[in-house]
This record gives sequence, structure tokens and C-alpha cells, in this order.
Amino acid sequence: MNSADLGRRVGVPSTALFTDQYELTMVQAALKAGTAGRRSVFEAFTRRLPEGRRYGVVAGIGRVLDAVENYHFDDAMLAFLRDHNVVDGPTLDYLADYRFSGDIWGYPEGEVYFPGSPILRVEGSFAECVLLETVVLSILNHDSAIAAAASRMSVAAGGRRLIEMGARRTHELSAVASARAAYIGGFDTTSDLAAGFRYNIPTVGTSAHAFTLLHDTERDAFRAQVESLGRDTTLLVDTYDVTAAVRTAVEVAGTELGAVRIDSGDLLLVAHRVRQQLDELGATGTKIVVTSDLDEYAIASLAAAPVDAYGVGTQLVTGSGQPTCSMVYKLVARAASADPADPLRPVAKKSLGAKTSLGGRKWAARRTDEDGVAEAEVIGTGPVPPDLAGRQLLVELVRAGEVVAREPLDAARERHIASRAGLPMSAMQLSRGEPVIPTEYV
Amino acid sequence: MNSADLGRRVGVPSTALFTDQYELTMVQAALKAGTAGRRSVFEAFTRRLPEGRRYGVVAGIGRVLDAVENYHFDDAMLAFLRDHNVVDGPTLDYLADYRFSGDIWGYPEGEVYFPGSPILRVEGSFAECVLLETVVLSILNHDSAIAAAASRMSVAAGGRRLIEMGARRTHELSAVASARAAYIGGFDTTSDLAAGFRYNIPTVGTSAHAFTLLHDTERDAFRAQVESLGRDTTLLVDTYDVTAAVRTAVEVAGTELGAVRIDSGDLLLVAHRVRQQLDELGATGTKIVVTSDLDEYAIASLAAAPVDAYGVGTQLVTGSGQPTCSMVYKLVARAASADPADPLRPVAKKSLGAKTSLGGRKWAARRTDEDGVAEAEVIGTGPVPPDLAGRQLLVELVRAGEVVAREPLDAARERHIASRAGLPMSAMQLSRGEPVIPTEYV
Repeated sequence: MNSADLGRRVGVPSTALFTDQYELTMVQAALKAGTAGRRSVFEAFTRRLPEGRRYGVVAGIGRVLDAVENYHFDDAMLAFLRDHNVVDGPTLDYLADYRFSGDIWGYPEGEVYFPGSPILRVEGSFAECVLLETVVLSILNHDSAIAAAASRMSVAAGGRRLIEMGARRTHELSAVASARAAYIGGFDTTSDLAAGFRYNIPTVGTSAHAFTLLHDTERDAFRAQVESLGRDTTLLVDTYDVTAAVRTAVEVAGTELGAVRIDSGDLLLVAHRVRQQLDELGATGTKIVVTSDLDEYAIASLAAAPVDAYGVGTQLVTGSGQPTCSMVYKLVARAASADPADPLRPVAKKSLGAKTSLGGRKWAARRTDEDGVAEAEVIGTGPVPPDLAGRQLLVELVRAGEVVAREPLDAARERHIASRAGLPMSAMQLSRGEPVIPTEYV
Repeated sequence: MNSADLGRRVGVPSTALFTDQYELTMVQAALKAGTAGRRSVFEAFTRRLPEGRRYGVVAGIGRVLDAVENYHFDDAMLAFLRDHNVVDGPTLDYLADYRFSGDIWGYPEGEVYFPGSPILRVEGSFAECVLLETVVLSILNHDSAIAAAASRMSVAAGGRRLIEMGARRTHELSAVASARAAYIGGFDTTSDLAAGFRYNIPTVGTSAHAFTLLHDTERDAFRAQVESLGRDTTLLVDTYDVTAAVRTAVEVAGTELGAVRIDSGDLLLVAHRVRQQLDELGATGTKIVVTSDLDEYAIASLAAAPVDAYGVGTQLVTGSGQPTCSMVYKLVARAASADPADPLRPVAKKSLGAKTSLGGRKWAARRTDEDGVAEAEVIGTGPVPPDLAGRQLLVELVRAGEVVAREPLDAARERHIASRAGLPMSAMQLSRGEPVIPTEYV
């Protein structure tokens, strides 16, 4: 059990098998070779942002903390590993006792990031750190991809309400994590009840075409909905003829009707017509919600339309063309033993192609200009320069195996909005571009 | 608890909150209006295949059956719905007693599908059927997207082994479902231990760069791995210099070395060089595994390279550019009451744009030519023509609330391979194209 970002307490099953097999076999080989206990530093980072994106958004940190807390092997899991000869007896003994006992620092949730940003830094023995690789990357790669799309949509919406409604377009639990990431990225509500239950994200709902089709007439359907849900409800007006439906809606609900939803057609044109009709009918306070394959570009194109809220599904939960990030989790330094007195030595792969990375245990800071606008992501392995000491990005998340940095989801959401606002204006452009600030290594 | 496709029994939590809020509020309004019990038929289908794809692959049916069995509201869920005023008291009472009691027919798992194919047909009261919409679509849209990508990769691999290793690139539970869908689509193994645990999919593992970097020399690392995991292991040879690593690998493991893995560089070129070197060293039986951002096109381009197995990650779990399908779940017919004697009336939305659909409860059959090759997906609402009666695609999955069609995952995998083999040859082309057979409505 854990606190699920201070929302409702929910049972989280063990996360230990959300792991690639090689993490366990590497532990086995290292245990036998006597190297499993070597003090090690792993870092999660990306070599690049998704093509054309100007900034990344860190999301999933709270879920990573849940995953680390719940990373333990129960009897059924150990029996599976034994029965399938995945690892040997000594390794099963090690896994049976496994609890992460190291330290984790990272970018706080909602913070923006850039190529090379050391988003998570995990320190402990080689064995205890390497086991976490797969599940840490699953969470960060998924959640950050969704949050990045959400952030762009939230920029495009310019303060209008955003409703996450993509549950049906992605795996049922990916959907819950997507609603959480979308909220961090600037969305206001979700249609996903599990996201409300687990994370206290406000949930909302309208009505589907099936409800209208269930009834003998559209008027019957609207009356049934208003009688049960009140005049403040949102009526779906595009099952048959939009103009007739809007007229019927106001006749049934009166001018206090909460909202109408449009889910098809040329949304720009239809929204203008519906707004005019609603106003002529005296329903000047009735809002217009639009849905139907929206992405950040479609949202931006409706900026001049009389739209009050956007419902976004597919393009949100698929990261608007970028359903994953390319975060990796690399050993960047290790000692020759478990002895804390043994110095950490930087290590890095040096082989073919672009997959090289910078060794060494890193810090990161965001340098700002005299107006307080970000001008570089500065990353180093040596001492932190005095002028950057107060601008460091990594915070302590886990100390000697204990989570020390729980926070409400709203804190991550507010941090994201503040962090994004500290970037140069060109970060807000939807067009493709380079990372909005450079990464400098010192 | 359920049987998870006849694999290991695992606890599946209730699936009832993987649901859009409007499903519940529609039930509330229909209960009050007296229409919730109207006998209804919903169908899941797509209006189009993802752009350029020639066939779709049905995956997730087994998971849908799990979801239907586990769709019930426990006390904590009901308390959440009550405390947040999601629905009223009578609706809470209805939900507290909810168990799906209707019938479900559908395409069996692994079968191919086309635009309009009635992939799932759910019959029962409006209320009991509409509640399932979101979770049914989540599963089918996700799993079918992954299976479709897997199927293309399996065509491209032409019989060489395919390893699913994308867990780190997608949500941790989406990863498990992806491994399952990939297996149905033709993959042989997965790196994801949870997929082995839940679904009995064979798991495999190699080694990561971190393992080499942990040790003082590459030779030390290889020796540690071989001593622990045996000569049959797969050594990763691209941490420093590939040629030197291959030489060291054979020196350490001997010519019985199982395999080497190459994870960077020009795979075509490197694979040829490594094969030649292995052969010169006498390691003629040592296999070559390649990984590194493979998709179906990269796999096809390596057809002439001396590669024995492909490890595929990102592009598999993101559906190779199509991370979701566009399946919808629509009310297609309903009666005026719950009375079985009341006739079902076809219903369909008739509004703006392309979002229209065909009303009526449907059957589907695949017509073949005289050589037994598929020539059309035939869909109808009337009687089934005698010549198609034996070629019907929908099978009974749930009868009066009881699941009647559990099967091992291998059955779905074999069905997919057979079903794909029954399509015209042009289905196997990786280039963009139209659906390989037309959909005909009779």
C-alpha cells in the first residue's frame, strides 16, 4: 500500500517483475564474480528530445517512488523464477531479501528538461540499482511523453479548460497514468474514474451518442438526461441535426443549460453557428465543449472560435506523435568495491554510432539571464560553480531506501506551469524547432 | 482471480473504474427514465485501418474476457462514487449489484480484420453493455495496435527469431500486454518477466553495457557472465571495440559461445564482419542477435545479413507509428423494452462528417476464391447466405455472463499465422497500401 501522490490509498502490487530478464541474470553473474556490491551510480537521461520538440516535461516521479517502495519479490514470483530457471539459488536468496537501500535524487515532477539532463540519479550497489532500470524507464518514458503533449496542448488552449478523455485509446492502466501526466502538463479534468479514485484528479462526463439512440427521440434523451443530471449537464448535440438539437436542448433544459458538446464536423464553423444560435435563444451562459480527434494544432486553430472547453483523447494518450521518450538508464560511475572510501570512477560506453554518453556523477543547474529567463541547462561532474549553487535542479527523493519527497499532484502541476513560464518565449511555439535552451557541460 | 489465458493464476483487480464517467451518468439517467433495461446490441469496429496498413490483427480478446469477469464495484469504489457525487443513490445500488449477464460474440484472438469488421458484439440491457465500453476499447485498441506491428515485423523477419524487449519504452503494464500481443502477432520470446509470469510467454535475456562497465575489463565481464550463465549465454560485444570484443568473447567462452549481441552502429555491415570473424575463430555455431531501434523496415533490410535474431523494443510497443487503433463501440440496435419478444431496431448516428456507421446487429464472413484465398470481408444484418454460413467469423465468447471461450495463447498465435496466410500475397508487402480485401455489405 502507498499513498499514490497523497490521493486515495490504493493497493499497488509488487513492481518487481516489470523487469527485463537480463537485469536479474546480470545480478546473478555479478554476485558470483563478487562485483554485485560495487558502489554504483546510474542516471536516467535522454540524448535528444523528440524531433522538433523544444522542451521535455518530467512526469512519473511520484510513480517511480511508488515503484521503488513496492519493488520486492513475493513467494509466487520467486517460485516462477526458480521453476523457469531464470536465476540460480544464491540469486533467489538475494532477491527474496531485496529492498532498495540506496539514494535517489532527481528532477522534481513537472520540471522541464533538455537533452542530457540527469533526470534521475540512482546510487547504491550495482545489483540494487540495476534491478530498477526497466520499471524506472517504463514510468518515466511513458509519463513524460504524455505530459509533454499535454503541456503543448495547454499552451495552445490559452487558459480554456482541457478535459482528458483518452482512456479508450490506450491500455487501461496506461490511461490512468496518462490522466495523471496530463494533469501535471496543464489539463484540468479527466473522464477516467480510476484517475479520480487513485489520484484525486477531478473527473467529468458528458453523454454519448448511444444515449440519444437508446431513446425514441432526441427530445426524450435530453429530457432523461436533464431530469437526472440537472440543467447544468452537457448535452451532446450532433447525433442527428445540430441546429435542431440545440433548439431542443434549450427547450428542454432552459437557458440555464450547462453546455453542449460537438463531436464531429467542422468544429470552427459549427462552434460559431451554435454559439450564435444559443445566444439568440437566450442561452448566453451555455458553454460549448468540442471533441473529435483534437491535438495541439487543432486546439490552436480554434483559438478564435467560441469554444469553452476542449476534450482530448487519442492524441493526448499517444503523446501527439511521440508516444515515448528516449530516456536511458546508464551506469555513469562505480567504485572498485562496496567501501564508501573507494573512489567513484566515471564509466561510459565508447563504441559505434551516436550511443555514447558522458561518464561521471552529475549535477545540473539552469542558468538564467538578468531578466530571470532560462538561457542554458548546465551539467557538470565537478564542483558546482558558486553562481549556480542556488539554481540546482536535482532534489533528494529517496534517502537510504526511504522515500523523502512525497508531494501532492497539484504541486507538480504548479511547478510545471512555473518552470515553463521561465523558458524563453519561443518555447511556446508549436512549430518544430530545436531545444529552446542549449545544454552546456562544464 | 482468473486464469489469465491459462497461464499462471494472477490477481486481477476490479476493472470497473477503468471507465469514463459518462458511462455511469448515462446509466443513472436511463435508470430514472426507465430505459436502462432496454435490450441493446453494441458493436466494436473500426471505420478504417491505420493509414497504409493492409490488414488489422485482433488482439486482447482474452484480456477483454478477464475484464468482463472482473467488472464489479467494491466498497471503496462505491464510496468514491458516492463521496464525489458521481452518481445518485439508485445508481449506486445498481452498480453494487453489477455483474455482466449478457452475451458476447466476437472475432477470435489472432484473426485478421478489416474496416467495418464487427470485432466484438455485446448484447444485454443498455446499462450493462454501456458500462463496458471504455475498458473494452482500451484493451482492443491497445493490444490490436501492438499485434498489428508485431505481425508486420514477423513477416519481415521471415522465420528468424523475434524477441520483444520494449518494456522500458511504455507503461509497465502496457508492456505486459504488449508482450502478449506481440506473441500473438508472431514474436517468439519476451524480455519482460511479468509477461512470462502472467501469460507463460517464454522469457529471455542477454546483458547490458552496464555489466561490462561494472567490471575492470571487458574480459572480466565476459568471464563473469560465462562462469555464471554458461557458454550458451549471449555476450554484448559493442561496449568498446567490436572486433576486440568478439575475439575476447570466443577466447573466454570458446567456440560453443551461444550468441553475441550488437546494439549500435551499421548493423548490416557489423553483422557481416562479426559473422566472418566468428567463423574464422571457429565459432560457426555462435549466433548473432541485433538490437537498436529496429522496426519492420530495418528488419527487412537485414534479410541478407547473417543475423539470427532480432530484438525489438520501441517500435513494437508503440505500434510502429500506430500506437492505437480507432475502434469504437457503438449502439447498433435496441428494443423498446427488456422483453425478448420486443424486436431489435437498428440505430445509427446520422450527423456531420465521416462519423456515420451502419445500424443493425451484424454477422461477418470471409469469402474466399477457388484457391481458398480471401477475397472479401462480407458483413450483413440479414440472414447469412448459405455459401457463407461455414465461413462466419464471430464466435461465442460469453453466454449469459459466463465466459465460454478461454484458450491458450498459443492457439491465438497459431490462428493469426493461419489467418494471415489465407490473405492475398500483397498483404505481406510492408509498403503502404489499401486494405488487402474489400469490405462488402450485403
